[in-house]
Formats: sequence, structure tokens, C-alpha cells
Amino acid sequence: MNGHVIRKSYLNFEGMKTINIIGLGNVGFHLAAGLKTSSRFRLQQIAVRSLEKAENEVPKELLVTDVNALKPADITIISVTDQAITEVSARIPYGNHLVVHTSGTSDMGILSDKNRKGVLYPLQTFSKGKEINFDTVPFCLEAQQAADLELLRTLASSLSRSVYDITSEQRRSLHVSAVFVSNFANHMYTIGSEICKEHSVPFEILLPLIRETADKVGYMSPKEAQTGPAVRFDEKTLRAHEHFLTNKTYKEIYQLITESIQNV
Amino acid sequence: MNGHVIRKSYLNFEGMKTINIIGLGNVGFHLAAGLKTSSRFRLQQIAVRSLEKAENEVPKELLVTDVNALKPADITIISVTDQAITEVSARIPYGNHLVVHTSGTSDMGILSDKNRKGVLYPLQTFSKGKEINFDTVPFCLEAQQAADLELLRTLASSLSRSVYDITSEQRRSLHVSAVFVSNFANHMYTIGSEICKEHSVPFEILLPLIRETADKVGYMSPKEAQTGPAVRFDEKTLRAHEHFLTNKTYKEIYQLITESIQNV
Repeated sequence: MNGHVIRKSYLNFEGMKTINIIGLGNVGFHLAAGLKTSSRFRLQQIAVRSLEKAENEVPKELLVTDVNALKPADITIISVTDQAITEVSARIPYGNHLVVHTSGTSDMGILSDKNRKGVLYPLQTFSKGKEINFDTVPFCLEAQQAADLELLRTLASSLSRSVYDITSEQRRSLHVSAVFVSNFANHMYTIGSEICKEHSVPFEILLPLIRETADKVGYMSPKEAQTGPAVRFDEKTLRAHEHFLTNKTYKEIYQLITESIQNV
Repeated sequence: MNGHVIRKSYLNFEGMKTINIIGLGNVGFHLAAGLKTSSRFRLQQIAVRSLEKAENEVPKELLVTDVNALKPADITIISVTDQAITEVSARIPYGNHLVVHTSGTSDMGILSDKNRKGVLYPLQTFSKGKEINFDTVPFCLEAQQAADLELLRTLASSLSRSVYDITSEQRRSLHVSAVFVSNFANHMYTIGSEICKEHSVPFEILLPLIRETADKVGYMSPKEAQTGPAVRFDEKTLRAHEHFLTNKTYKEIYQLITESIQNV
């Protein structure tokens, strides 16, 4: 029988938990991709506003254009803008199922009361142009009912090694922190690349520095890791840089962050 | 003879080029460490202001406390604050040797005329608490004379795979960019960690996000990589975050960078 043993569950999709996703933005797109290889969860349907772009990204047969057309699923994941969460959750045609949002900012409570509520917040920066290794993505979970929290844990653990129970309050502070360490850090990269472009220096020279700066805070606190003219109170260099910067906004940012570094 | 062949040069230190380092700050310290294993360059002397700390960091016999006590070396590397470079270079007791500084901001010309001038600028963030893999550190080189530039290239190539000829003008713009992408990005990490501390959330949860954000700009431009409420013009979240931030400086930084992201 060796080599011919097929587990009863092998082609039995019946035993798998089903997932619906509403919204195919950066988060929905990558969650859909992450679920592709799951042996315990099956992506059942994805609700999108328009088929046009979505058809190039996921199999057509999964797509519906109306939230109302969704069939009941064990977990429904809403990954739309914060403003739309309440309204979208109210349009779900079934009740008493687990419905979660993926927002860092919004309370669990903003979900419609017709379903059981939860949050599945993947703390990562998602862009459609780059694959994500879900293995290290921290998932922040919250649910009204213990059994639902357990189900979310099973889902998150099937995607990642890093799963946390996080309250709405804690999630809010994590999200603000994430804006600083990711969105704002990335904008510092944008300014750096603009300066390079303006002076015909390849931005690539800065990549090892960018990576080392990020890597360092895994070894020491960011406060200990701080280097550069601001923390050295190197006034001569600070004045030279301010003089160098002709863009008014960049100059303002330079002055404000320098001051903030010096006051830590 | 197998196993008994020793190259003539094996214990012949005579053939090695000699290096003096002036200053044992973050850059001098790591350059000294990087030179340790070189087979072509030998660290001859290190001039420091006080022996006390330096004796714990490098072998005592390499140390002198007076620049005037340095013996002539093939390359003298000045890694002191920008303000002190001119004065320190004038105190070197020998003439017509290659003397370089490691500054991102200062012109090559600020070095004293008594020696041949050059620049060896390692574009990386150095802290004494973390080892550096020099292999990927970009070295930006400049020299008055072609033979000296060639010698600097040999030195830099013995430490790193990434060596560039960069003019003083280009180096200045690289340094300003480096302040944004490294010093200022790191300060964003500091603010994130302060917010986490204040709300009893472990900063570690943010490390995968920090690494992915840095990694991403190796695959797409920082402008394309931008995510978050600012670039989405998600006014509800932006207002919620501003309301959340009680620290006046953090709030100001939040508003200024958000505005800058939206105007890119």
C-alpha cells in the first residue's frame, strides 16, 4: 500500500473552514495570496467594487461585485477603508457568523451587530508590487467570543509564527507607532531619493545604510542606535545641511526632527 | 612539501601598507576592527585624546595620545568631528603622505596642505554596540592624485565589494540624504518605541514591519512603496491619530510629514 495511501481529508474540502474577503486592496490582496496554500482554510469568495482590475489578480470564479451576493463563511474578513467598514458590514446578507476587520485604528465595535465581531490586524506594510513572507508578519487578534478568538488564532497561526491577542486600545497605539516607523520612515527614504535624483547620485548607494539602520534596532534601542549630526550637536554640519536644502518642506522637516532628536 | 609551503610574504610585514587612524569614535573604531584581518594593510598607530576608554577597545601598544607622536604611514585616516579636521591635520608631524578624512560633509580641501589629500567616506551608520559587515558598506572615495585614489581603492576594496569615486559635491548630497534615510528614519523608530512604552505594548511587534519597510525600497521606489493613512488621504484616521498624540512635538512631526507625503 506504500505510496498509495491518501488521507481521507486529502481531497475533502468539506472539512475546511471557509473565508470570505471583502475588498481587494493591498491587505485583502495579500491575505488572499497567503490563504492560497492553507490546508485548513479555503478562500470561498471575494467581494470587490469592480471586476476589471480584480480579474487580473485573483481567479474570476471567486469574485462577486455585491457584498449581498456573498454566501455564509466561517470567517468574513473586511479589508476596506476605515470609513466604509460599518456600512459594508451591515450589507453582509447573513447573520451570527464571525466577521472581522483588518484595521489598525478602528474599534471592533464599529462592525454591524448582525454578526459576531472580531479583528485580524496584520502589522505589516503591504504593496501589490512585492510578495510578503507571512511567516514573520505579526497578527494582532481580538474577538468578542472566546471560540471566535480561538478560530482566529488557528487562522493566523496557519499563516504566521507571530500571533498576539491585542485589545482595541493597544492596537490603536500600535497603529500610530506603525505610521511613524513605517510610513514616515519610508517618506524619509523618499526625500533621500529625491535629493539623490536632484544631484545625479544613484539612490542604490544608500540601500545598505537603510537596511543596517533597520536591522540595528533589533540589537539595541533606537535611542541608543541614534547617530548623525543632530545627536552629536554638530552645529557646523547642521547649518551646512540646512543651507544645502532648498526645498522649503524638506528644510522644515530637517529642523523639526533635528530638534526632536536633541530633546529626547 | 605538502602542507609545509609558506609564502615568502606570510610573515613579512614589510610589504604591507601602513595605516594610522586619528580618532576612535564610531567610524575610527569600526575601521580599526575592519583592518584587523587585512593581509595588505597594517594598522600602525591610533591617536586618541585619552587612553582611558580606548585601552578597552584596541591593543594598548597601538595607542598614542598626541597626533605629534605618530610615525609616517602610507595612509592616515582622520575620523574626528568635522570641526576638528583642519586643526588635527595640521598637527600631523610628517609631510607629503596621503591623509584622508572620513566626513560626509566636509570638502577634501579643508585638510592641511602639508600632506596629499583624500577622502574615505564609509556610507554606513556605525555604533560601538553592533558589529559591521564591511562587505556591503559603500566606500565613497576622492583624492587629489591618481596614484592616491588607486591606493584608496585598494584599501576600500580589501574591506568592501562596494567602492565608488565620488566628488565632494556628490558626497555632500549623499550625506544629507543619509541623514534623512538613516538618522531621521531611526528617530521615527524612537518615537514609535516611546509610544509603545507609554501604552505597554512590546516594541518587538514592530520589528518585522521596520525590516520590511527598509527591504521594500530595494524592489520599488520609496514613492511607490508609500502606504498608510496619509497617502490614502484617510482623513478619519489622520484626525484620530492627531487626537491620540498628546506629545506636542510628535503631533507636529505627524502633521508636517503627513502634509509632505500628500504633496509628493
